[in-house]
Amino acid sequence: MRDRGSPHSTTKIRVRYAETDMMGVVYHANYLVYLEIARVDLLRTAGIRYRDLEDAGYSLAVTEARCRYLSGARYDDDLAIDTWVVDVGAASVLFEYEIRREEDGRRIVEGSTELACLGETLRPRRMPVEVKAALEGLLGR
Amino acid sequence: MRDRGSPHSTTKIRVRYAETDMMGVVYHANYLVYLEIARVDLLRTAGIRYRDLEDAGYSLAVTEARCRYLSGARYDDDLAIDTWVVDVGAASVLFEYEIRREEDGRRIVEGSTELACLGETLRPRRMPVEVKAALEGLLGR
Amino acid sequence: MRDRGSPHSTTKIRVRYAETDMMGVVYHANYLVYLEIARVDLLRTAGIRYRDLEDAGYSLAVTEARCRYLSGARYDDDLAIDTWVVDVGAASVLFEYEIRREEDGRRIVEGSTELACLGETLRPRRMPVEVKAALEGLLGR
Amino acid sequence: MRDRGSPHSTTKIRVRYAETDMMGVVYHANYLVYLEIARVDLLRTAGIRYRDLEDAGYSLAVTEARCRYLSGARYDDDLAIDTWVVDVGAASVLFEYEIRREEDGRRIVEGSTELACLGETLRPRRMPVEVKAALEGLLGR
Repeated sequence: MRDRGSPHSTTKIRVRYAETDMMGVVYHANYLVYLEIARVDLLRTAGIRYRDLEDAGYSLAVTEARCRYLSGARYDDDLAIDTWVVDVGAASVLFEYEIRREEDGRRIVEGSTELACLGETLRPRRMPVEVKAALEGLLGR
Repeated sequence: MRDRGSPHSTTKIRVRYAETDMMGVVYHANYLVYLEIARVDLLRTAGIRYRDLEDAGYSLAVTEARCRYLSGARYDDDLAIDTWVVDVGAASVLFEYEIRREEDGRRIVEGSTELACLGETLRPRRMPVEVKAALEGLLGR
Repeated sequence: MRDRGSPHSTTKIRVRYAETDMMGVVYHANYLVYLEIARVDLLRTAGIRYRDLEDAGYSLAVTEARCRYLSGARYDDDLAIDTWVVDVGAASVLFEYEIRREEDGRRIVEGSTELACLGETLRPRRMPVEVKAALEGLLGR
Repeated sequence: MRDRGSPHSTTKIRVRYAETDMMGVVYHANYLVYLEIARVDLLRTAGIRYRDLEDAGYSLAVTEARCRYLSGARYDDDLAIDTWVVDVGAASVLFEYEIRREEDGRRIVEGSTELACLGETLRPRRMPVEVKAALEGLLGR
């Protein structure tokens, strides 16, 4: 993976019992939920409250997701999720993530998600200018 | 529990891996999902497609739920959910359920949910006449 | 509901997007997940780390759950969950909960769960003495 | 995407209410649950019951997952998931999937998952000979 510089935001999460499966680790689909929480945190850091965006008639829908599972997180583990904005288009944005266990620094998941900006009818729509600018502002760091 | 007669519908479900937790059994919150599937099946049996109800501006929201957990279902278990309508009001309906494992007949969960009929603004609203009639028709059996 | 005094613990949770459903509010089964998080927090407050309890061969399994849904929480709502221990037996404990939205103090859910202490074969087992004492200590407050 | 021939199995799923989110469509993480169900079905078709595999001390853990989200499935939609085995190693197997809505044939998700065979300590372990042979048998079709 190329050098992405310091993460644009870091989110802390503690693994819930409900998120584990009978293998004793976090069920793999649940990491996508963690990535979303991290992404919303990054947006908040950049001055964008995702809920306000939806209230204004926009949504950011995941169009592609990729996860590499490196190690299994366990119940009650404290995880840190580093998040980066790596590309911003007129109606799309690409995030990358790395989930680590805080206790031993072990990498758990490495992932990316591409999101499309949609309008109220769930059709592609240009992002609001200030949202695009805020995301591009992160790119430069 | 009082005698409720034969179930008004029986729904088959196979336990998914995602539904288990690290204790090796179905995570307790997931049984509420099973109960909903069973309830929608019962409605369908009575000629009511829940999706059409929502399209017509109604929803049935759970206002109270109760579960007694008798035994733990495991991954890949085939379960049968018996469902009964036990009370019908102008804008509410009460369901009772029993979940059994098919292989050995063991009772897994016994539960009930009360639902309120809501309109588009999520305020209480009388059920459509034909829905109420269909549910009352089951009561008499 | 009887007067239970001040809550034995209060847990803060922010509603995740994944926890909503197409009705625009938190899917009802997910409140049971919130109650579990609140319960684990209460135990931690009382000096009991649930994960250690499982490592020592014990588990606390929900044997009965009840929820009354008073209002729907929405995405990104900040919720506070007050939790009380209301009864402690040799191998069981009863918790009560109240979930409020922080912004307006509105009550969202009122619930209770009964838990049984199980040993490694998932059979009932007396709680460790220090766990029982810690829980009883809360009762007296 | 290259021509993969006829799917090695096709699994039918009906979207549950619990799987939707406030956008009114299936929450994106839940498709990974659907892919797992499809994969387990394919294994069953090939004579392998995943539960027996775990009972025998093996597990198949997802090491990489990729999804492209083409359209949103809605509550109560009937979906068909075509599944292919596209590569088999000594301790790994790669599956590809395509999820379509049955009503209009619309493609919903296209995905792949790579799985590693693990032993009881969650370390990589060669697949049982008969499992590997069964999977390779599908490749040739």
